[in-house]
Amino acid sequence: MNKRKAAVLVAGSWGTALAAVLADNGFDVALWSRNEAQVEEINRLRTNSRYLNEAVLPERIVATTDMEQAVRGAELLLFVAPSAAMRDVAKQAAPYLHEEAIVVHATKGFESGTFKRMTTVLAEELVIGAERLVVLSGPSHAEEVVRKLPTTVVVASSSMESAERAQDAFITNYFRVYTNKDVVGVEVAGAIKNIIALGAGLTDGLGFGDNAKAALLTRGLAEISRLGNAMGANPLTFAGLAGVGDLVVTCTSKHSRNWRAGAMLAEGLSLDAVLDRMGMVVEGVRTTSAARELSRQFDVEMPITEQLYQVLFQQKSPRSAVESLMGRGRTHETEEIADI
Amino acid sequence: MNKRKAAVLVAGSWGTALAAVLADNGFDVALWSRNEAQVEEINRLRTNSRYLNEAVLPERIVATTDMEQAVRGAELLLFVAPSAAMRDVAKQAAPYLHEEAIVVHATKGFESGTFKRMTTVLAEELVIGAERLVVLSGPSHAEEVVRKLPTTVVVASSSMESAERAQDAFITNYFRVYTNKDVVGVEVAGAIKNIIALGAGLTDGLGFGDNAKAALLTRGLAEISRLGNAMGANPLTFAGLAGVGDLVVTCTSKHSRNWRAGAMLAEGLSLDAVLDRMGMVVEGVRTTSAARELSRQFDVEMPITEQLYQVLFQQKSPRSAVESLMGRGRTHETEEIADI
Repeated sequence: MNKRKAAVLVAGSWGTALAAVLADNGFDVALWSRNEAQVEEINRLRTNSRYLNEAVLPERIVATTDMEQAVRGAELLLFVAPSAAMRDVAKQAAPYLHEEAIVVHATKGFESGTFKRMTTVLAEELVIGAERLVVLSGPSHAEEVVRKLPTTVVVASSSMESAERAQDAFITNYFRVYTNKDVVGVEVAGAIKNIIALGAGLTDGLGFGDNAKAALLTRGLAEISRLGNAMGANPLTFAGLAGVGDLVVTCTSKHSRNWRAGAMLAEGLSLDAVLDRMGMVVEGVRTTSAARELSRQFDVEMPITEQLYQVLFQQKSPRSAVESLMGRGRTHETEEIADI
Repeated sequence: MNKRKAAVLVAGSWGTALAAVLADNGFDVALWSRNEAQVEEINRLRTNSRYLNEAVLPERIVATTDMEQAVRGAELLLFVAPSAAMRDVAKQAAPYLHEEAIVVHATKGFESGTFKRMTTVLAEELVIGAERLVVLSGPSHAEEVVRKLPTTVVVASSSMESAERAQDAFITNYFRVYTNKDVVGVEVAGAIKNIIALGAGLTDGLGFGDNAKAALLTRGLAEISRLGNAMGANPLTFAGLAGVGDLVVTCTSKHSRNWRAGAMLAEGLSLDAVLDRMGMVVEGVRTTSAARELSRQFDVEMPITEQLYQVLFQQKSPRSAVESLMGRGRTHETEEIADI
């Protein structure tokens, strides 16, 4: 095993940004992608223009389409594939995984159809125990990370040793990494905040203002916490960087794809037209289906998820969805956070 | 007592916006101000241009400089004086308060010097029990409320009956009001988030980006929750509208005076120059002193408050304060929310 080799799969915006952090920290980074033109651009021009158009990537990053070359000997594997591709990418990487390597992922979403969390998918495909798996999450726009603007994230693992290995690998003076033990909470928070971000894009797109958006965020956080709690998470995780922190950054910044998708829906575009225009994966869309299913499995009320589902898949108008969420017509109600 | 008369003291931006909500709800509203020119402008032109320059105020609002005329017979008194003026305004109103009236306040801050909460100040000066006192708080820019954009707030009282009277008085189809029992939590959250907003203005002013601001908000929330908890609040209040909700709206919107003050400090202006330019009260400045004192009284660590205090009153440079908050140089740390 090469103590300073890391493999990053795949070369989207967040994968590329995290590869740059590892390279800054002295790692030789193999950045894997299926796309030959992208690999050539990264190696020749030091750019990944489709995903991070202003960044110049460190020399220590070498892109490759060869999975064996990427993974063999790496002491750390970082999976940042879209949730829908995670199982397939893990399956391809599995034969080359070193037995002492740790496996980190930074993907926010559940597997379509099965609604499994990403660490579950990775454990199944890589045939490794939970103690080698780490999730990295928090308020972190890739565009700011490659500019080395101050950023904080959490790494969660059932094994504090693995969490600390990930912390050591990623921590720099501009990228602060905190450890946490609550894998379920960090994964649920990260996945579901994309739904709230879609909703925030909707309210902003409809011109409803900051007060309405803050209300949506607050209720959204309560909704995420309720589901997380039912799934076995620590409720405090939702008050931390992977919860409130990530929710805030996703819902208030125009960097966010989910926010932009919501804003386009508010303008009256169909879901197909929005996805077509984005040209990148919008995790919040598929997460909405998954979360709705989980809310039924775990018998948890998730009104924002439900309204978003109706907008995305049942042609409900964005305006009437937001009005439903604002709870028009209701009177005597206490704040509902006490049931978290 | 006149069942549909309310008195609002004083006619700043938030007081005026809440007066408009009460008027929309059928109340005859007496809006009290010391300033004769402002009173005349409101009554003649239906505007309050210094504080809400685009709003046209409802006819049911009558401004007055006569405290007796304002307060006598009102079934609801709403105090929205700056925290530093609250005791004096309450003292003036006390002789005319009807014995069945409820008293609501919507001021975010502690009394200078004594560090008392506003309900404490009101109880002392009006000589009434806690059961007649209500605090109204939440994510609510006055500018959006007068435009009737959807807004949600909480009203908290030790008496659910008083909270529900306030809820009935304020609730409209664009202004949603939830009841809550945690007076201490709502007051502490509302006061201290102004400190975090100052800090958010600082990080934005220094060009540190959304990731850094989200980290500041998350740690800020933990800091507020720790103090609130020590003071007897319900920790869940900080996850609700008066906590997360208000923090988000204050820290991410350029309407916020505290945010703007922080941004000006980041540009290198002195505190005196900032306060001079603002021309309005910046609650976060005096709250910083109060919160620092409370953190010592209750033995609670409040690093953001401490750094802000040093910037405001001890000539620390904004950049080195933010760098201290980002915790440079620290390595193995777990997320610190578990001690809330």
